[in-house]
Amino acid sequence: MEVASSKLMPELFEEILPKHRFAVIGGPMLADEIMADLRAACVVASKDMVFAEEIEALLSSPLFRIEPSSDVTGVALAGVLKNIYSVSLGIADGLSLSGNEKGWLVSRAINEMSRIGEIFNVPIATVLGTAGVGDFIATGYSQYSRNRAVGDEIVKNGICKLPGEGLVSLPALLGRLKEDGTGFRLLDLVKRVGIDCEPAQAAFDHFFMNGK
Amino acid sequence: MEVASSKLMPELFEEILPKHRFAVIGGPMLADEIMADLRAACVVASKDMVFAEEIEALLSSPLFRIEPSSDVTGVALAGVLKNIYSVSLGIADGLSLSGNEKGWLVSRAINEMSRIGEIFNVPIATVLGTAGVGDFIATGYSQYSRNRAVGDEIVKNGICKLPGEGLVSLPALLGRLKEDGTGFRLLDLVKRVGIDCEPAQAAFDHFFMNGK
Repeated sequence: MEVASSKLMPELFEEILPKHRFAVIGGPMLADEIMADLRAACVVASKDMVFAEEIEALLSSPLFRIEPSSDVTGVALAGVLKNIYSVSLGIADGLSLSGNEKGWLVSRAINEMSRIGEIFNVPIATVLGTAGVGDFIATGYSQYSRNRAVGDEIVKNGICKLPGEGLVSLPALLGRLKEDGTGFRLLDLVKRVGIDCEPAQAAFDHFFMNGK
Repeated sequence: MEVASSKLMPELFEEILPKHRFAVIGGPMLADEIMADLRAACVVASKDMVFAEEIEALLSSPLFRIEPSSDVTGVALAGVLKNIYSVSLGIADGLSLSGNEKGWLVSRAINEMSRIGEIFNVPIATVLGTAGVGDFIATGYSQYSRNRAVGDEIVKNGICKLPGEGLVSLPALLGRLKEDGTGFRLLDLVKRVGIDCEPAQAAFDHFFMNGK
């Protein structure tokens, strides 16, 4: 998501390169695992479905599952959301949350992701699918992920504003959602801890014990 | 879910005890964690919302988040689904899946859970919420969970039909969904591996490389 405009990448491409066809790719593709010959999966989305299927035919292999899609906006949005919500799973790790708390946190993340998808008018299957929940869980539970590590380090080292895609795009997303801290309480938690440098445990306690 | 009738518990209660008010409870409440004074969360659902709120007032504490709800069917269904899909995460552990594969698998599980919720006509927020996804993730990632362990042991020991709520209720759910192995492919995978004793790696490979 472009910080200045709060626009998703395909929205920019359509403005800048209106005559070009392009595809957006998203999904659980942790690079360290791919380099170790482990399997990965992704969605390739293009408004030109034939183009998406051409890419599928080109890249698909027994190690690489490709799902063609026409939902360009949904896949781009899913990529933004999974980075931000992965920071929240890093915060969870930093706080050594119980399994019960962490399960509850994941449900809040996926609930918010699906509601943000509705606001962007994308099919819920994209947000709940490979590029959304699939990449969120792979990233948020991985030792290799920068965004998860950012959340973890912020808590353990008592610092904030660490570089990472999730925290960079969060203000742009909040601006676009016109979010005031009440509609998407987990986004608000990530902002308070990751950007405003509030103490993580108190912010999580407030989040856990209040609101829907 | 009652095996003989494929009915959910509140459906049975309404038949047997039509004049009694009752509530259904569901959510990430791993007992070992609660005994260790770690926090847990749940939904308390009753058609009588005042009754649900009375239970909330009675049980709520700084260690126990209670969410009152009127979606009795959704919470009961969520409890059935999280047990079955947690077996799939145990199978994933038994197969030592990559983080990418496991993230993808979780997205398939949540996609199927949300579609089954639609068939039962329950609000998607219940399935994506504390009693659904929340309990699924807590259970499916916990060393304390029987259903996760069942999936893991089936793969590692090459046996099947191990006792556990997930595998007991699976045939009843498949019967009620009139599932033939094509609509809910992850349910079908759990059945093939957990009940029909098919080799887990081959069944997973087929699941991963084919279909939507």
